[in-house]
Amino acid sequence: MLNETALHTLFLDARTHNGWRDKPVSDEQLRQIYDLMKWGPTSANCTPARIVFVQSPQAKEKLLACMNPGNIEKTRTAPVTAIIGMDLEFYEKLPRLFPHNPDARSWFAGNRQAIDSTAMRNSSLQGGYFIVAARAVGLDCAPMSGFNAEKINEAFFDGTPVRVNFVCSLGYGDTSKLHARGPRLAFDEACRII
Amino acid sequence: MLNETALHTLFLDARTHNGWRDKPVSDEQLRQIYDLMKWGPTSANCTPARIVFVQSPQAKEKLLACMNPGNIEKTRTAPVTAIIGMDLEFYEKLPRLFPHNPDARSWFAGNRQAIDSTAMRNSSLQGGYFIVAARAVGLDCAPMSGFNAEKINEAFFDGTPVRVNFVCSLGYGDTSKLHARGPRLAFDEACRII
Repeated sequence: MLNETALHTLFLDARTHNGWRDKPVSDEQLRQIYDLMKWGPTSANCTPARIVFVQSPQAKEKLLACMNPGNIEKTRTAPVTAIIGMDLEFYEKLPRLFPHNPDARSWFAGNRQAIDSTAMRNSSLQGGYFIVAARAVGLDCAPMSGFNAEKINEAFFDGTPVRVNFVCSLGYGDTSKLHARGPRLAFDEACRII
Repeated sequence: MLNETALHTLFLDARTHNGWRDKPVSDEQLRQIYDLMKWGPTSANCTPARIVFVQSPQAKEKLLACMNPGNIEKTRTAPVTAIIGMDLEFYEKLPRLFPHNPDARSWFAGNRQAIDSTAMRNSSLQGGYFIVAARAVGLDCAPMSGFNAEKINEAFFDGTPVRVNFVCSLGYGDTSKLHARGPRLAFDEACRII
């Protein structure tokens, strides 16, 4: 079992932030996040998540034009905002990623429903690993779904098979700007043991 | 930043297991997993994941009848197998879970596309938190997508608005039964910094 400090860093005390301290995030930290999260399991090791770390003022302006009004200011002030995308041609990499079964590509190629559900499920799982990994390297997160997906796809993934899943700012949160923490369902509301 | 031991437990050394040591998992550990993962962020705090921990021989038999042939034996021998489901009526709980905005329920009610994509994205994110939380409490995981979803829905969620997302065995892995670890994409293949 992890020690209490680690459990607090990852889950118990970690919060979604709305404001950011003036402290930069290094490229090295972004690489550390990926080098942890990449090991999280996905079905047939398909790892469909593709990440654009938006850091420069020019790239950030492009992203702000795609965000819902309520998310613009907090995205502008974040040191980095990651776009978590999903590669809808992930199956082309399976011969390399899943050598265990040479047929894996054929489970998906041409099967739109299998592609879409596998890309969405697994890139979201990887999004969960991403958030936990960012916290593990000492950063705070602000995941967001409030944006115009078509605009993000056009601005950042045009001409590629990648489509946005969600967006997540990274930095050092300003705890003075936190809202009250939302309640959670009790174990017996969300779970049963049978 | 978490210490090296924790990073190895969560990501660097953690593996998807195919075989299990003969060591039980307690109900208390299942509650610990939920009491960590429940704090992970979801959009509008919607927390759509619903979990059935399949533990008794009778419930396990019902589940085995839904699994693909290649997953039956490793599911049979696991101390517990969790069914990670998603509540397609999650929005009914938003007035309580997201008091911040009393309109949140209306973003979803009657909007099938918004319900489906939000339930799938966020229950998968929570699936990522679940896997990391299980590892944090000292357990090994074996997530699986190889099953008949209709059969699981009928056997475990009949008459409810919950639908299966994926399945994940829990226990203490038998490292002698591990396959070679699959490769991962390099940072520059999966990410860019702009």
